[in-house]
Amino acid sequence: MRIRVVNPNTTRAMTDAIEQCAQAVAGRGTLLDAVTAEMGPASIESHYDEALSVPGILAAIRRGEQEGIDGYVIACFGDPGLDSARELARGPVIGIAEAALHTASHLGGGFSIVTTLSRTIGRADELVYRYGMQRFCRGIHACEIPVLALEDPDARKIVTEACGDAVDADGSDAIVLGCAGMADLCSHIRDEIGVPVIDGVAAATLTVQSLITLGLRKSGRGEFAAPSPKQYSGLLRSFGSNS
Amino acid sequence: MRIRVVNPNTTRAMTDAIEQCAQAVAGRGTLLDAVTAEMGPASIESHYDEALSVPGILAAIRRGEQEGIDGYVIACFGDPGLDSARELARGPVIGIAEAALHTASHLGGGFSIVTTLSRTIGRADELVYRYGMQRFCRGIHACEIPVLALEDPDARKIVTEACGDAVDADGSDAIVLGCAGMADLCSHIRDEIGVPVIDGVAAATLTVQSLITLGLRKSGRGEFAAPSPKQYSGLLRSFGSNS
Amino acid sequence: MRIRVVNPNTTRAMTDAIEQCAQAVAGRGTLLDAVTAEMGPASIESHYDEALSVPGILAAIRRGEQEGIDGYVIACFGDPGLDSARELARGPVIGIAEAALHTASHLGGGFSIVTTLSRTIGRADELVYRYGMQRFCRGIHACEIPVLALEDPDARKIVTEACGDAVDADGSDAIVLGCAGMADLCSHIRDEIGVPVIDGVAAATLTVQSLITLGLRKSGRGEFAAPSPKQYSGLLRSFGSNS
Amino acid sequence: MRIRVVNPNTTRAMTDAIEQCAQAVAGRGTLLDAVTAEMGPASIESHYDEALSVPGILAAIRRGEQEGIDGYVIACFGDPGLDSARELARGPVIGIAEAALHTASHLGGGFSIVTTLSRTIGRADELVYRYGMQRFCRGIHACEIPVLALEDPDARKIVTEACGDAVDADGSDAIVLGCAGMADLCSHIRDEIGVPVIDGVAAATLTVQSLITLGLRKSGRGEFAAPSPKQYSGLLRSFGSNS
Amino acid sequence: MRIRVVNPNTTRAMTDAIEQCAQAVAGRGTLLDAVTAEMGPASIESHYDEALSVPGILAAIRRGEQEGIDGYVIACFGDPGLDSARELARGPVIGIAEAALHTASHLGGGFSIVTTLSRTIGRADELVYRYGMQRFCRGIHACEIPVLALEDPDARKIVTEACGDAVDADGSDAIVLGCAGMADLCSHIRDEIGVPVIDGVAAATLTVQSLITLGLRKSGRGEFAAPSPKQYSGLLRSFGSNS
Amino acid sequence: MRIRVVNPNTTRAMTDAIEQCAQAVAGRGTLLDAVTAEMGPASIESHYDEALSVPGILAAIRRGEQEGIDGYVIACFGDPGLDSARELARGPVIGIAEAALHTASHLGGGFSIVTTLSRTIGRADELVYRYGMQRFCRGIHACEIPVLALEDPDARKIVTEACGDAVDADGSDAIVLGCAGMADLCSHIRDEIGVPVIDGVAAATLTVQSLITLGLRKSGRGEFAAPSPKQYSGLLRSFGSNS
Repeated sequence: MRIRVVNPNTTRAMTDAIEQCAQAVAGRGTLLDAVTAEMGPASIESHYDEALSVPGILAAIRRGEQEGIDGYVIACFGDPGLDSARELARGPVIGIAEAALHTASHLGGGFSIVTTLSRTIGRADELVYRYGMQRFCRGIHACEIPVLALEDPDARKIVTEACGDAVDADGSDAIVLGCAGMADLCSHIRDEIGVPVIDGVAAATLTVQSLITLGLRKSGRGEFAAPSPKQYSGLLRSFGSNS
Repeated sequence: MRIRVVNPNTTRAMTDAIEQCAQAVAGRGTLLDAVTAEMGPASIESHYDEALSVPGILAAIRRGEQEGIDGYVIACFGDPGLDSARELARGPVIGIAEAALHTASHLGGGFSIVTTLSRTIGRADELVYRYGMQRFCRGIHACEIPVLALEDPDARKIVTEACGDAVDADGSDAIVLGCAGMADLCSHIRDEIGVPVIDGVAAATLTVQSLITLGLRKSGRGEFAAPSPKQYSGLLRSFGSNS
Repeated sequence: MRIRVVNPNTTRAMTDAIEQCAQAVAGRGTLLDAVTAEMGPASIESHYDEALSVPGILAAIRRGEQEGIDGYVIACFGDPGLDSARELARGPVIGIAEAALHTASHLGGGFSIVTTLSRTIGRADELVYRYGMQRFCRGIHACEIPVLALEDPDARKIVTEACGDAVDADGSDAIVLGCAGMADLCSHIRDEIGVPVIDGVAAATLTVQSLITLGLRKSGRGEFAAPSPKQYSGLLRSFGSNS
Repeated sequence: MRIRVVNPNTTRAMTDAIEQCAQAVAGRGTLLDAVTAEMGPASIESHYDEALSVPGILAAIRRGEQEGIDGYVIACFGDPGLDSARELARGPVIGIAEAALHTASHLGGGFSIVTTLSRTIGRADELVYRYGMQRFCRGIHACEIPVLALEDPDARKIVTEACGDAVDADGSDAIVLGCAGMADLCSHIRDEIGVPVIDGVAAATLTVQSLITLGLRKSGRGEFAAPSPKQYSGLLRSFGSNS
Repeated sequence: MRIRVVNPNTTRAMTDAIEQCAQAVAGRGTLLDAVTAEMGPASIESHYDEALSVPGILAAIRRGEQEGIDGYVIACFGDPGLDSARELARGPVIGIAEAALHTASHLGGGFSIVTTLSRTIGRADELVYRYGMQRFCRGIHACEIPVLALEDPDARKIVTEACGDAVDADGSDAIVLGCAGMADLCSHIRDEIGVPVIDGVAAATLTVQSLITLGLRKSGRGEFAAPSPKQYSGLLRSFGSNS
Repeated sequence: MRIRVVNPNTTRAMTDAIEQCAQAVAGRGTLLDAVTAEMGPASIESHYDEALSVPGILAAIRRGEQEGIDGYVIACFGDPGLDSARELARGPVIGIAEAALHTASHLGGGFSIVTTLSRTIGRADELVYRYGMQRFCRGIHACEIPVLALEDPDARKIVTEACGDAVDADGSDAIVLGCAGMADLCSHIRDEIGVPVIDGVAAATLTVQSLITLGLRKSGRGEFAAPSPKQYSGLLRSFGSNS
């Protein structure tokens, strides 16, 4: 079984950290790798960045399909390009927000999300709504640290405090980390604040692995059938059947 | 890692079938067994049966905690006693409806549920609502076969037809089987009707396994903290701290 | 017309207090009594207690049916076993949360619920949702007094303060008391804080009385039809048709 | 205890029929009368009719307050003027749709509404939504008989058939009659189709009676406080403090 | 193209101010006027006032239809009589709350409403719900200034502060002014607090103008078809076909 | 005032048709043009096509900002890239689904959407949900004609029939056309089926024009603030601040 984690931004250091978190939970029979998007933004902190990360994700999935990959994780908490990736891949594709929110709903009465910049709260809220998790999500909070600064010495402390504050303010039973770049802080924060902390990278890896084990893949028909071949133009010419 | 599947009814043949379906997907490092409720109804086909299956489930979990079980599956599509079981267990407890509905939401635009008797549709609808899956569930259909008749030669054909009809009527991309007793029909139906078919027993087994792998268990505080010790009377005396 | 109030816990003093509150509002032609569950927990303060109160409730209703009781009140704010009790009884069965929430919705723009321990807030929230009362419920608050301590001299003061605080914090027009054990505090709190205060025991008694007067009982068919006779095992053998 | 049923249209024959239905269920200590609106439409079958029935309702309530009436029923299924009537009255005011929908929700998994003309379905749907009854309402159907023709010999048959069809089409457990003019058909339809049939006039009478018995009236503050005195002009001059 | 703005209260000074705000945005080909209700309350600050403003609105629309008016704005934030006005008019009728809420939803992630007296918050909330704007509305706040005092020297300052506070408390991206009497404060507040501020009078004027330009009017059939002619009695005799 | 309509696909003939529909309703003071995406798919009929149309849309808006455009219409019924476009533009950006759904909600009790291929129904449903229009949308139907075949002689007839069937099946008061390529069929279908038919291109043009007239543009802060400058790589290098 081959699972590929796609880092939708172009920062390789982040891909490496994500890969470690995914490897740590993958089963013995699972071959897992992580790839960095070949085009797009260095980090994703706006709707603009997110939309422009999608071509890189789709290119990675197209390559994966040629290599026989069985399932994919999209490792950005905005779950960019999820629907289009599902059309393209034969096997399951899971976003880390999707996996994290579902996972958190199994653990208690309600959870809080802690994300990076406050301008990303709107997207997190939209995903909560999309996945039907409104009743479980008690609050979404920003720690105002940009994605690529999460590795700074001070960041760990600030994120941990934001998580503790969120649990208190919302009366929550669990924390969902709202950025793939926080994946390696997960066990540290859990130890500090004493409630379950969910990292979507690890959660999504296991969700994909489970779906493959269950033999489940999208229906050949319906909303997520393969897109019809079609001419594409300009910079994106290679995404069409004419390339 | 030790996972226990609890069959909430008292029919051992059904426990055996359920155990096989769970074993088929469990990971190499997972020790899995299934147990039959020691008290309660022979099958669960009403709110009455479901309510009265809960003491048997809780007794099974209490024993499991003494034996060091790491997580549990409740193998009845009504997810009976899920909240109380979560209070009692240290590790994760997942209902098969919960796992099946979440799993189906990853596979397409919408799914249909096929259950046994039409009187159980109300409970299925309530669970769809509880787990936030209204947008994904396009219909709930009964095949009017009682739980313990699902093994009859004709039943397989009737259930399969009901699944095919549901997909057509609802325009669904996947089928969720609405009874643990249908678990062994899963791959047969998938082959016949050509869309993904989700059996909650297998799905819940992998959800529990994933949660344990992720090191996630309920918060020690909050809604699912262990119940306070308390005196119990009469037939249920053994469930209290006074037993 | 005979109405029976079932106290789902095994504490007789609480049954007596509940009976008084119900008697105070019952009509002249109504014969009302209250019974204590013969099995189960001394008080209900967790999902575990609530689930294990259901066999006692169902046993009480089965006896009531033999005695010709026309309708029932389930006198615990978690409305335990309501669906199964409706299957078993020929006449109406009403939970005190159900009646209190409906009643409060007739009185103003929105209400607050004040319950006992904070761990019961989750169940209250679920019931608000189940009965469609989300738009009317502006907050659920705990006073952190255990059920059996509600009779303590200090408790009345603490509950009253919690009600006043809830009205202020939520901008509510009414208070719903979140425990049958608070029934006798109702008029006191109303006098103190000056908004309507709803006790579910009295409200449910009148709802049952009204349904009987209207000649309304469940449909013979559908979700709440009588459960099919079936073999039950172990401690719960007496709940089956084999007993 | 004095309860007044207000017929918001100006047709006295309908007031008489409504009064009989209300009297049939009122308790022994209840003095009940019904009044006909002194201004407005002969029947209510559009948003226009409904809006213009409100001054007549408010005039009737103003008179009732002077006479010491304790509570009111608004006997039109559109619940016209309910909020404004609540501001004006010291005691409870209940609409017949409000009472019927709440009552039906206690009886089964779901109900259907049968109304007069199809153009009134929109208002019924809005009330279902307003009272939080979406999960219980499985369908709203028109029998296309105008309000004042409900007394025709053929009408009873057509309404009864529409109710039977609705139960079958929606898989409902109960019928809510969507017009005060259908009140006297209630027991006939129940006998014919074999499911509970709810008439809002009787249901609302008992809801008001219960609220008065419980000593519950709106809060003096908040959304339903008495309206501030104010100058009114033109035809409606008498509704202001200047009259 | 002729558009008429109806001021549902009887205060002419307010009609003049409203007309100016509407004129300021109307297109070159649009003939716009504003009229004052000929009957009803001097200002609208309760459900009672609102219900009793409807006959005046409907009389104004009936006159407008005779004069060939193409579309109407109802200039009170409670959108009184909107459904009945739609039945009566051949062209579009838009409420200022309706237009303001829709407009605000195009501008950012969420908005706050600032209204006059807190007792009107309930109606604003109901309209948010009716128009499907719950996800966009982050809070409704009162500044506790009566409608007719909005022109006082101090009022502008208090309303502006309330708007600034609302943006901070709710984390909103825009303000919706909750009273037609605030229309002329719109640009001042926008300048002061630096977020978009929406006045419903101007927004509704352009919405009506757009619908007329698009050639869109209600369907001749269905919920908003013209009301059937019918006898009306008493003070409201002139609203019937018998007048 | 300068408004630009962006056709997100690369088919110039469709841009021309769209421009005509927009010109037909634009006000006298409005300078309107339409542009064709310089990169991406020839038509948009899947999530894949839609995601890959966004870079072309954003490039068009970036150019528009340099040219001083005041507002934009995104002329594809999936509203691709709407959030990111809002970040990039100083003035308003409106999607044609957004405008059409809002407009339809002003005209009647409920509408039906008629789209091209059934695989696009999921996206339409998501947008209905996103804009809060669930209560107004009674059905979404496909006519199974690909976007670029809408100009075929037979297509007009098939789409018209699908609209008529949708109105009947859903009991709708209006039709929303679910593709920019149907814009020029709008008046024909309205004449044929006798209910209002809404074309989003015209509706969105007037919505943008109204927002500009009202002086409304997004807040400088919050979710739609301009994206931070950032390095972009590969094919999409030109979208970053490093280009």
